[in-house]
Amino acid sequence: MSPVLRVMGVDPGLTRCGVGVVDVARDRSARIVHVGVVRSAADLPASERLHIIAEGLREVVREFGPAAIAVERVFAQQNLSTVMGTAQASGVALLIAAENGIPAATHTPSEVKAAITGYGSAEKLQVQTMVARVLRLDALPQPADAADALALALCHAWRGGPQPARGGEADEMTPAQRAWRNAERSTRR
Amino acid sequence: MSPVLRVMGVDPGLTRCGVGVVDVARDRSARIVHVGVVRSAADLPASERLHIIAEGLREVVREFGPAAIAVERVFAQQNLSTVMGTAQASGVALLIAAENGIPAATHTPSEVKAAITGYGSAEKLQVQTMVARVLRLDALPQPADAADALALALCHAWRGGPQPARGGEADEMTPAQRAWRNAERSTRR
Repeated sequence: MSPVLRVMGVDPGLTRCGVGVVDVARDRSARIVHVGVVRSAADLPASERLHIIAEGLREVVREFGPAAIAVERVFAQQNLSTVMGTAQASGVALLIAAENGIPAATHTPSEVKAAITGYGSAEKLQVQTMVARVLRLDALPQPADAADALALALCHAWRGGPQPARGGEADEMTPAQRAWRNAERSTRR
Repeated sequence: MSPVLRVMGVDPGLTRCGVGVVDVARDRSARIVHVGVVRSAADLPASERLHIIAEGLREVVREFGPAAIAVERVFAQQNLSTVMGTAQASGVALLIAAENGIPAATHTPSEVKAAITGYGSAEKLQVQTMVARVLRLDALPQPADAADALALALCHAWRGGPQPARGGEADEMTPAQRAWRNAERSTRR
Protein backbone atom coordinates (compact mmCIF):
# COMPACT_ATOMS: atom_id res chain seq x y z
CA MET A 1 0.00 0.00 0.00
CA SER A 2 1.31 3.47 -0.83
CA PRO A 3 2.13 5.87 2.02
CA VAL A 4 -0.76 7.92 3.29
CA LEU A 5 -0.56 11.46 4.61
CA ARG A 6 -3.21 12.42 7.17
CA VAL A 7 -3.88 16.16 7.00
CA MET A 8 -6.18 18.29 9.16
CA GLY A 9 -7.55 21.43 7.52
CA VAL A 10 -8.85 24.36 9.56
CA ASP A 11 -11.03 27.16 8.18
CA PRO A 12 -10.64 29.55 11.13
CA GLY A 13 -13.51 31.47 12.66
CA LEU A 14 -15.10 32.27 16.02
CA THR A 15 -18.75 31.65 15.15
CA ARG A 16 -17.98 28.61 12.96
CA CYS A 17 -14.52 27.05 12.70
CA GLY A 18 -14.46 24.38 9.98
CA VAL A 19 -12.36 21.26 10.58
CA GLY A 20 -11.68 18.47 8.10
CA VAL A 21 -9.33 15.49 8.20
CA VAL A 22 -8.36 13.54 5.07
CA ASP A 23 -6.02 10.67 4.24
CA VAL A 24 -4.22 11.30 0.96
CA ALA A 25 -2.23 8.61 -0.85
CA ARG A 26 0.81 9.20 -3.00
CA ASP A 27 -1.30 8.72 -6.15
CA ARG A 28 -3.36 11.74 -4.97
CA SER A 29 -6.42 9.61 -4.15
CA ALA A 30 -8.04 10.65 -0.89
CA ARG A 31 -10.61 9.59 1.65
CA ILE A 32 -12.48 11.57 4.28
CA VAL A 33 -11.64 10.80 7.92
CA HIS A 34 -13.58 13.51 9.71
CA VAL A 35 -15.49 16.68 8.99
CA GLY A 36 -17.12 19.07 11.42
CA VAL A 37 -17.56 22.57 12.69
CA VAL A 38 -16.63 23.97 16.10
CA ARG A 39 -19.06 26.74 17.07
CA SER A 40 -19.01 29.37 19.77
CA ALA A 41 -21.83 31.72 20.76
CA ALA A 42 -21.40 35.36 19.75
CA ASP A 43 -22.50 36.64 23.18
CA LEU A 44 -19.58 35.00 25.02
CA PRO A 45 -16.40 36.96 25.80
CA ALA A 46 -13.75 36.60 23.09
CA SER A 47 -11.43 34.69 25.42
CA GLU A 48 -14.14 32.10 26.16
CA ARG A 49 -14.91 31.76 22.46
CA LEU A 50 -11.25 31.11 21.66
CA HIS A 51 -11.11 28.55 24.47
CA ILE A 52 -14.10 26.68 23.02
CA ILE A 53 -12.52 26.71 19.55
CA ALA A 54 -9.19 25.51 21.00
CA GLU A 55 -10.80 22.63 22.89
CA GLY A 56 -12.73 21.57 19.79
CA LEU A 57 -9.58 21.55 17.65
CA ARG A 58 -7.57 19.73 20.34
CA GLU A 59 -10.24 17.01 20.44
CA VAL A 60 -9.89 16.42 16.69
CA VAL A 61 -6.07 16.33 16.99
CA ARG A 62 -6.28 13.81 19.85
CA GLU A 63 -8.83 11.59 18.12
CA PHE A 64 -7.38 11.51 14.59
CA GLY A 65 -3.66 12.30 15.03
CA PRO A 66 -3.00 14.29 11.85
CA ALA A 67 0.61 14.43 10.53
CA ALA A 68 0.14 17.99 9.28
CA ILE A 69 -2.24 20.89 9.93
CA ALA A 70 -3.21 23.36 7.21
CA VAL A 71 -4.85 26.65 8.19
CA GLU A 72 -6.42 29.16 5.83
CA ARG A 73 -4.31 32.28 5.62
CA VAL A 74 -6.19 35.37 6.79
CA PHE A 75 -5.69 38.73 5.09
CA ALA A 76 -6.17 42.17 6.60
CA GLN A 77 -8.26 43.13 3.56
CA GLN A 78 -11.05 40.66 4.40
CA ASN A 79 -14.38 41.55 6.05
CA LEU A 80 -13.37 44.13 8.65
CA SER A 81 -16.03 43.21 11.21
CA THR A 82 -14.87 39.60 11.53
CA VAL A 83 -11.26 39.55 10.33
CA MET A 84 -9.70 40.08 13.77
CA GLY A 85 -11.66 37.20 15.29
CA THR A 86 -10.74 35.04 12.31
CA ALA A 87 -7.06 35.92 12.74
CA GLN A 88 -7.23 35.17 16.46
CA ALA A 89 -8.80 31.76 15.75
CA SER A 90 -6.09 31.03 13.16
CA GLY A 91 -3.45 31.88 15.79
CA VAL A 92 -5.04 29.41 18.17
CA ALA A 93 -5.08 26.68 15.48
CA LEU A 94 -1.38 27.28 14.70
CA LEU A 95 -0.54 27.24 18.43
CA ILE A 96 -2.28 23.87 18.86
CA ALA A 97 -0.23 22.44 15.98
CA ALA A 98 3.03 23.54 17.62
CA GLU A 99 1.92 22.32 21.05
CA ASN A 100 1.41 18.87 19.55
CA GLY A 101 4.64 18.89 17.51
CA ILE A 102 2.66 18.83 14.26
CA PRO A 103 4.02 20.85 11.29
CA ALA A 104 1.60 23.59 10.28
CA ALA A 105 1.23 25.62 7.12
CA THR A 106 -1.08 28.32 5.86
CA HIS A 107 -2.56 28.47 2.37
CA THR A 108 -4.40 31.35 0.72
CA PRO A 109 -7.92 30.87 -0.66
CA SER A 110 -6.60 31.13 -4.22
CA GLU A 111 -3.92 28.53 -3.56
CA VAL A 112 -6.67 26.21 -2.35
CA LYS A 113 -8.85 26.92 -5.38
CA ALA A 114 -5.92 26.37 -7.75
CA ALA A 115 -4.94 23.10 -6.08
CA ILE A 116 -8.48 21.73 -6.11
CA THR A 117 -9.94 22.94 -9.42
CA GLY A 118 -6.85 23.93 -11.43
CA TYR A 119 -7.39 27.68 -11.32
CA GLY A 120 -7.22 30.24 -8.56
CA SER A 121 -10.38 32.19 -9.30
CA ALA A 122 -12.77 29.21 -9.22
CA GLU A 123 -16.21 29.68 -7.69
CA LYS A 124 -16.87 28.27 -4.21
CA LEU A 125 -19.41 25.82 -5.64
CA GLN A 126 -16.85 24.41 -8.08
CA VAL A 127 -14.42 23.83 -5.22
CA GLN A 128 -17.08 22.12 -3.13
CA THR A 129 -18.19 19.97 -6.06
CA MET A 130 -14.61 18.86 -6.70
CA VAL A 131 -14.03 18.13 -3.00
CA ALA A 132 -17.17 15.98 -2.92
CA ARG A 133 -16.07 14.12 -6.06
CA VAL A 134 -12.50 13.49 -4.86
CA LEU A 135 -13.72 12.24 -1.48
CA ARG A 136 -16.62 10.30 -3.06
CA LEU A 137 -19.22 12.07 -0.90
CA ASP A 138 -22.92 11.67 -1.75
CA ALA A 139 -23.57 15.37 -1.16
CA LEU A 140 -21.65 18.62 -0.92
CA PRO A 141 -20.09 18.94 2.54
CA GLN A 142 -22.06 21.43 4.68
CA PRO A 143 -21.73 24.10 5.99
CA ALA A 144 -19.30 25.94 3.69
CA ASP A 145 -16.73 26.19 6.50
CA ALA A 146 -16.54 22.39 6.70
CA ALA A 147 -16.14 22.11 2.93
CA ASP A 148 -13.40 24.74 3.00
CA ALA A 149 -11.55 22.84 5.72
CA LEU A 150 -11.58 19.66 3.59
CA ALA A 151 -10.39 21.63 0.56
CA LEU A 152 -7.54 23.10 2.62
CA ALA A 153 -6.45 19.65 3.79
CA LEU A 154 -6.50 18.27 0.21
CA CYS A 155 -4.66 21.36 -1.05
CA HIS A 156 -1.95 20.90 1.56
CA ALA A 157 -1.38 17.25 0.70
CA TRP A 158 -1.41 17.84 -3.04
CA ARG A 159 0.80 20.92 -2.98
CA GLY A 160 3.29 19.39 -0.58
CA GLY A 161 2.93 22.52 1.53
CA PRO A 162 5.69 24.84 2.72
CA GLN A 163 8.13 22.56 4.55
CA PRO A 164 9.06 23.70 8.03
CA ALA A 165 12.80 23.08 8.52
CA ARG A 166 12.49 20.50 11.26
CA GLY A 167 13.23 16.83 11.91
CA GLY A 168 10.73 14.10 12.79
CA GLU A 169 7.37 14.42 11.09
CA ALA A 170 8.64 16.78 8.44
CA ASP A 171 11.28 14.30 7.32
CA GLU A 172 8.72 11.51 7.09
CA MET A 173 6.44 13.63 4.92
CA THR A 174 8.99 14.92 2.52
CA PRO A 175 9.38 12.10 -0.05
CA ALA A 176 5.67 11.72 -0.80
CA GLN A 177 5.03 15.42 -0.72
CA ARG A 178 7.95 16.25 -2.97
CA ALA A 179 6.75 13.68 -5.49
CA TRP A 180 3.28 15.20 -5.51
CA ARG A 181 4.61 18.70 -5.82
CA ASN A 182 6.82 17.77 -8.75
CA ALA A 183 3.90 16.07 -10.47
CA GLU A 184 1.82 19.22 -9.89
CA ARG A 185 4.45 21.45 -11.38
CA SER A 186 4.99 19.32 -14.47
CA THR A 187 1.29 19.28 -15.32
CA ARG A 188 0.23 22.79 -14.30
CA ARG A 189 3.03 25.05 -15.50
CA MET B 1 -5.08 47.86 53.88
CA SER B 2 -7.30 48.54 50.91
CA PRO B 3 -8.03 45.72 48.45
CA VAL B 4 -5.50 45.30 45.68
CA LEU B 5 -6.22 44.21 42.14
CA ARG B 6 -3.38 42.42 40.35
CA VAL B 7 -3.65 42.98 36.58
CA MET B 8 -1.51 41.59 33.78
CA GLY B 9 -1.27 43.72 30.63
CA VAL B 10 -0.28 42.25 27.27
CA ASP B 11 0.85 44.30 24.26
CA PRO B 12 0.55 41.52 21.68
CA GLY B 13 3.16 40.84 19.01
CA LEU B 14 5.18 38.01 17.50
CA THR B 15 8.61 39.66 17.46
CA ARG B 16 8.13 41.38 20.83
CA CYS B 17 5.14 40.72 23.10
CA GLY B 18 5.13 43.16 26.03
CA VAL B 19 3.98 41.86 29.42
CA GLY B 20 3.45 43.91 32.57
CA VAL B 21 1.93 43.07 35.94
CA VAL B 22 0.81 45.72 38.42
CA ASP B 23 -0.93 45.79 41.80
CA VAL B 24 -3.49 48.59 41.96
CA ALA B 25 -5.14 49.68 45.20
CA ARG B 26 -8.62 51.11 45.55
CA ASP B 27 -7.18 54.62 45.97
CA ARG B 28 -5.67 54.17 42.46
CA SER B 29 -2.10 53.93 43.76
CA ALA B 30 -0.11 51.22 42.00
CA ARG B 31 3.14 49.30 42.20
CA ILE B 32 4.99 47.32 39.56
CA VAL B 33 5.14 43.55 40.06
CA HIS B 34 6.76 42.45 36.79
CA VAL B 35 7.66 43.81 33.40
CA GLY B 36 9.18 42.01 30.46
CA VAL B 37 9.06 41.12 26.80
CA VAL B 38 8.57 37.70 25.23
CA ARG B 39 10.45 37.52 21.92
CA SER B 40 10.34 35.06 19.04
CA ALA B 41 12.69 34.94 16.06
CA ALA B 42 11.23 36.08 12.74
CA ASP B 43 12.69 33.10 10.85
CA LEU B 44 10.70 30.51 12.82
CA PRO B 45 7.39 29.15 11.48
CA ALA B 46 4.38 31.14 12.73
CA SER B 47 3.12 28.21 14.77
CA GLU B 48 6.45 27.93 16.63
CA ARG B 49 6.48 31.68 17.26
CA LEU B 50 2.99 31.56 18.74
CA HIS B 51 4.05 28.61 20.90
CA ILE B 52 7.02 30.58 22.29
CA ILE B 53 4.77 33.58 23.01
CA ALA B 54 2.20 31.32 24.69
CA GLU B 55 4.79 29.65 26.92
CA GLY B 56 6.21 33.04 27.92
CA LEU B 57 2.77 34.38 28.86
CA ARG B 58 1.87 31.18 30.74
CA GLU B 59 5.03 31.50 32.80
CA VAL B 60 4.05 35.02 33.90
CA VAL B 61 0.52 33.83 34.75
CA ARG B 62 1.90 30.93 36.80
CA GLU B 63 4.46 33.05 38.63
CA PHE B 64 2.36 36.12 39.45
CA GLY B 65 -1.26 34.86 39.41
CA PRO B 66 -3.03 37.95 38.00
CA ALA B 67 -6.76 38.38 38.78
CA ALA B 68 -7.41 39.97 35.38
CA ILE B 69 -5.68 40.10 31.98
CA ALA B 70 -5.91 43.15 29.71
CA VAL B 71 -4.90 42.80 26.05
CA GLU B 72 -4.48 45.64 23.58
CA ARG B 73 -7.26 45.57 21.02
CA VAL B 74 -5.94 45.10 17.48
CA PHE B 75 -7.53 46.87 14.53
CA ALA B 76 -7.55 45.73 10.91
CA GLN B 77 -6.46 49.25 9.90
CA GLN B 78 -3.05 48.91 11.60
CA ASN B 79 0.26 48.16 9.85
CA LEU B 80 -0.75 45.59 7.23
CA SER B 81 2.52 43.66 7.27
CA THR B 82 2.32 42.81 10.98
CA VAL B 83 -1.34 43.14 11.93
CA MET B 84 -2.23 39.48 11.32
CA GLY B 85 0.62 38.25 13.53
CA THR B 86 -0.38 40.78 16.18
CA ALA B 87 -3.98 39.57 16.04
CA GLN B 88 -2.85 35.94 16.29
CA ALA B 89 -0.73 36.76 19.35
CA SER B 90 -3.68 38.59 20.94
CA GLY B 91 -5.83 35.50 20.35
CA VAL B 92 -3.24 33.37 22.13
CA ALA B 93 -3.15 35.81 25.09
CA LEU B 94 -6.96 35.74 25.38
CA LEU B 95 -6.96 31.92 25.14
CA ILE B 96 -4.44 31.66 27.99
CA ALA B 97 -6.66 33.89 30.16
CA ALA B 98 -9.66 31.63 29.58
CA GLU B 99 -7.61 28.45 30.12
CA ASN B 100 -6.65 29.78 33.54
CA GLY B 101 -10.14 31.01 34.44
CA ILE B 102 -8.94 34.61 34.47
CA PRO B 103 -11.31 37.32 33.17
CA ALA B 104 -9.87 39.06 30.13
CA ALA B 105 -10.66 42.35 28.45
CA THR B 106 -9.35 44.31 25.50
CA HIS B 107 -8.72 48.05 25.47
CA THR B 108 -8.00 50.27 22.48
CA PRO B 109 -4.84 52.41 22.38
CA SER B 110 -6.92 55.57 22.84
CA GLU B 111 -8.73 54.11 25.85
CA VAL B 112 -5.31 53.42 27.37
CA LYS B 113 -4.05 56.92 26.60
CA ALA B 114 -7.21 58.49 28.03
CA ALA B 115 -7.03 56.41 31.21
CA ILE B 116 -3.35 57.17 31.81
CA THR B 117 -2.99 60.80 30.72
CA GLY B 118 -6.55 62.12 30.64
CA TYR B 119 -6.88 62.39 26.88
CA GLY B 120 -7.04 59.84 24.09
CA SER B 121 -4.65 61.42 21.63
CA ALA B 122 -1.68 61.70 24.01
CA GLU B 123 1.83 61.06 22.65
CA LYS B 124 3.52 57.76 23.46
CA LEU B 125 6.18 59.56 25.48
CA GLN B 126 3.55 61.24 27.68
CA VAL B 127 1.98 57.85 28.40
CA GLN B 128 5.36 56.33 29.26
CA THR B 129 6.28 59.28 31.47
CA MET B 130 3.01 58.99 33.38
CA VAL B 131 3.40 55.21 33.76
CA ALA B 132 6.90 55.72 35.18
CA ARG B 133 5.61 58.38 37.59
CA VAL B 134 2.62 56.34 38.79
CA LEU B 135 4.80 53.26 39.35
CA ARG B 136 7.67 55.34 40.80
CA LEU B 137 10.17 53.97 38.29
CA ASP B 138 13.59 55.61 38.02
CA ALA B 139 13.49 55.48 34.21
CA LEU B 140 10.96 55.02 31.43
CA PRO B 141 10.16 51.32 31.04
CA GLN B 142 11.90 49.88 27.94
CA PRO B 143 11.25 48.72 25.27
CA ALA B 144 8.04 50.51 24.26
CA ASP B 145 6.11 47.20 24.21
CA ALA B 146 6.88 46.70 27.91
CA ALA B 147 5.74 50.25 28.72
CA ASP B 148 2.55 49.72 26.73
CA ALA B 149 1.82 46.51 28.65
CA LEU B 150 2.12 48.34 31.98
CA ALA B 151 -0.10 51.15 30.68
CA LEU B 152 -2.71 48.59 29.61
CA ALA B 153 -2.70 46.96 33.04
CA LEU B 154 -3.09 50.34 34.80
CA CYS B 155 -5.82 51.34 32.35
CA HIS B 156 -7.74 48.15 33.04
CA ALA B 157 -7.61 48.59 36.82
CA TRP B 158 -8.55 52.27 36.68
CA ARG B 159 -11.35 51.89 34.17
CA GLY B 160 -12.83 48.87 35.93
CA GLY B 161 -12.76 47.11 32.57
CA PRO B 162 -15.66 45.42 30.79
CA GLN B 163 -17.01 42.88 33.29
CA PRO B 164 -17.48 39.39 31.91
CA ALA B 165 -20.76 38.00 33.28
CA ARG B 166 -19.23 35.22 35.37
CA GLY B 167 -18.86 34.18 39.01
CA GLY B 168 -15.66 33.71 40.97
CA GLU B 169 -12.93 36.19 40.18
CA ALA B 170 -15.29 38.61 38.49
CA ASP B 171 -17.44 38.89 41.59
CA GLU B 172 -14.40 39.51 43.75
CA MET B 173 -13.24 42.32 41.49
CA THR B 174 -16.51 44.11 41.08
CA PRO B 175 -16.79 46.30 44.21
CA ALA B 176 -13.38 47.93 43.89
CA GLN B 177 -13.62 48.24 40.14
CA ARG B 178 -17.09 49.74 40.23
CA ALA B 179 -15.94 52.33 42.75
CA TRP B 180 -13.03 53.32 40.53
CA ARG B 181 -15.18 53.47 37.44
CA ASN B 182 -17.73 55.70 39.16
CA ALA B 183 -14.97 57.99 40.37
CA GLU B 184 -13.61 58.14 36.81
CA ARG B 185 -16.99 59.06 35.38
CA SER B 186 -17.68 61.77 37.91
CA THR B 187 -14.37 63.53 37.25
CA ARG B 188 -13.99 62.99 33.49
CA ARG B 189 -17.45 63.60 32.04
